[in-house]
Amino acid sequence: MTLIEPRLLKGFRDFAPQSQARRQQLFAMIRESFEIFGFAPLETPVLEYKDILMGKYGDDEKLVYSFKDNGDRDVAMRYDLTVPLARFVALNQGKLTFPFKRYQIAPVWRADNPQKGRYREFYQCDVDVVGSDSVISDVEVIACLAQTIEAIGLTNYKIRINDRAVLKELSQNAIRILDKVEKIGVDGMINEMRARDIDTKEIELATKLVDPTVSGGILNDYIPDRLQQVLDLLQQYDLKGQVEFDPTIARGLDYYSGTVFEIFLNDKPEYGSICSGGRYDGLLDQFSKQSQPAVGGSIGIDRLLGAMEEISTLPAVDQIEALIVNVEPELSIQYIKLANRLRELGIKTEVYCDSAKLEKQFKYGEQRDAKFALVFGSNELEQNLVQLKNLQTREQQTLTFDNAIKNIVSALR
Amino acid sequence: MTLIEPRLLKGFRDFAPQSQARRQQLFAMIRESFEIFGFAPLETPVLEYKDILMGKYGDDEKLVYSFKDNGDRDVAMRYDLTVPLARFVALNQGKLTFPFKRYQIAPVWRADNPQKGRYREFYQCDVDVVGSDSVISDVEVIACLAQTIEAIGLTNYKIRINDRAVLKELSQNAIRILDKVEKIGVDGMINEMRARDIDTKEIELATKLVDPTVSGGILNDYIPDRLQQVLDLLQQYDLKGQVEFDPTIARGLDYYSGTVFEIFLNDKPEYGSICSGGRYDGLLDQFSKQSQPAVGGSIGIDRLLGAMEEISTLPAVDQIEALIVNVEPELSIQYIKLANRLRELGIKTEVYCDSAKLEKQFKYGEQRDAKFALVFGSNELEQNLVQLKNLQTREQQTLTFDNAIKNIVSALR
Repeated sequence: MTLIEPRLLKGFRDFAPQSQARRQQLFAMIRESFEIFGFAPLETPVLEYKDILMGKYGDDEKLVYSFKDNGDRDVAMRYDLTVPLARFVALNQGKLTFPFKRYQIAPVWRADNPQKGRYREFYQCDVDVVGSDSVISDVEVIACLAQTIEAIGLTNYKIRINDRAVLKELSQNAIRILDKVEKIGVDGMINEMRARDIDTKEIELATKLVDPTVSGGILNDYIPDRLQQVLDLLQQYDLKGQVEFDPTIARGLDYYSGTVFEIFLNDKPEYGSICSGGRYDGLLDQFSKQSQPAVGGSIGIDRLLGAMEEISTLPAVDQIEALIVNVEPELSIQYIKLANRLRELGIKTEVYCDSAKLEKQFKYGEQRDAKFALVFGSNELEQNLVQLKNLQTREQQTLTFDNAIKNIVSALR
Repeated sequence: MTLIEPRLLKGFRDFAPQSQARRQQLFAMIRESFEIFGFAPLETPVLEYKDILMGKYGDDEKLVYSFKDNGDRDVAMRYDLTVPLARFVALNQGKLTFPFKRYQIAPVWRADNPQKGRYREFYQCDVDVVGSDSVISDVEVIACLAQTIEAIGLTNYKIRINDRAVLKELSQNAIRILDKVEKIGVDGMINEMRARDIDTKEIELATKLVDPTVSGGILNDYIPDRLQQVLDLLQQYDLKGQVEFDPTIARGLDYYSGTVFEIFLNDKPEYGSICSGGRYDGLLDQFSKQSQPAVGGSIGIDRLLGAMEEISTLPAVDQIEALIVNVEPELSIQYIKLANRLRELGIKTEVYCDSAKLEKQFKYGEQRDAKFALVFGSNELEQNLVQLKNLQTREQQTLTFDNAIKNIVSALR
């Protein structure tokens, strides 16, 4: 037989049990936090008709995975969770209750150039409110995302907020350069704008936005009323992070229309924004004559996981808790019975499948995070005894089965 | 602007919040049950190199979604969770601890003809043990799946087990006809076998297997020793369903090699098998010179959900629990503060975003399953009072904020 070389596509990842268990724990925490804010889960398919996704992502459209299916239909893989949401709402307009508050935690695909921390398949965790243009819906989305980040242990963050209205007198080209001011500095920005023939008025406005003191003004003069309301209401959530107006936050995607925001970790600026979003009142108009305002945001779980690993706020997850050691295969029935007793008590238990040297089995138990190993052969069984080995301390006790089980439960729960 | 018609691909589905919340609850129960048996989570990518998937699924290979990606690579979407597992193990052979026990709950894609209950995108819930050929690994997989089905409330089921060894003297064509005997009857089977020129010896064996009394034998005579051990050990789990030897269980896929099984609901035979699997000792050989025996099984979540809906064992899930009614938008700060107090107590709470008629807001609360609505304007606020409306009984009380919160918590927790 010719061997097929086992390999992974570039930009794609396997998540082995140790890391996947942590990811699942993280997803569960995020779900819980989203639900506390009244968001409910939605799931949309991975494949959509290609035309549903096209014309939404600007230049990034070329990153969409698309192909012809067996029925010669043009189909595409989900690029984000926002456009499928808009398609879902338009398709179910008559059946939904508005405002429609949904969350979705799911992978998306982008044929991007894989770099450190950038993948072609990655998860997004989105919350959105469709059908309200209220300030409350803006702040609920932002506060929900911020409190979710707090719930998973990251409290040293900054929310930077802007309103697209602030930038309305700037061209897309000017905005793109303004967006880089943190990297290139104010002079760098001005120089680049001049080099690109940006209008002098635009350069003046951009300069005032990033450094209002140049004209004796203060930054807050540029805050529109609606954004001021957003900032004021956000104060009510007692967020642990700072909230600040930042006129350089623009967000790339075509569909943003009002409030825009990004969240950064103060300890880990190199991760860029770990969360972002904004108001996109026009997106649904592309699918339906019934216009619907909308606001939402997304947590980038990969950046978050990266940061959590470094700051080590990640929860530990044990794969198994107790291992039944297989001393005599003839006792399989007894091993299974003991496993069942422990499982009924909610203890993650495994019977070692094969007969192997005790040391090998103990090592296996340790590698799978088991706290206890239970060992018995026919001699012990006759006396109703079992050896309970603590795999962390290496202590070992000989106990009745009942007492061994009691010990395990009291140690683990 | 030209409208894009919002539509779904045939065979693909959206899961709106009401049904998605239930699905997530079900997935959580399945995960918990899998983990109690010592299986740990693995996640593999949706896309694989096409050659990884080819040559494993017999005729069904044509159902694999495959295409050329932007880099001109032949890629394919996951068709099941077993082949990616084999690829993962072969790729990480040196790093894994064996026996490797993993579960995966994830969607797969098949370009099948969509029919009632058949979709092109659907979830599978798999458990597998790689690296052991022991009888214990067979029974642990089967018992884990059976107890998972019990855990979600389906107790009236039957496990039908066979061993591929029983069928080793039958050709693939004969097996395929034997497989249909329940539908076409013994005579139908014999006639079809004759019509297809199946060897007389094979027809005799097939007839004895489905009706051993014709030759004065009993069915149990055909049970191989290893299968007898599987049947004996399964008795130790006190399963609620019956377990029986069924020589007609063959399983279509090429890679099965030993024990094979299917689980059926006695109440819902029309759903076919809701769970199935078996031993596939040869699959890993296709990726690696290091041979690894393996056994596993899969729960078909769509059939299960269908059956649960009909038998109504599905858990109810509330989208939100309390709704803060928006009476005066000027009080937004107060509404948010009250929501935060409830959320801190773990109550799923929503602030109605817009000011709207009270009746509309109550109706919204009901549609989102809220048990309580909290109503206050500036008059109530001055007196530190709030109206607590039970949306199920329509009863309404005027209480202090503290007492309203106490009432809600004691009613819901």
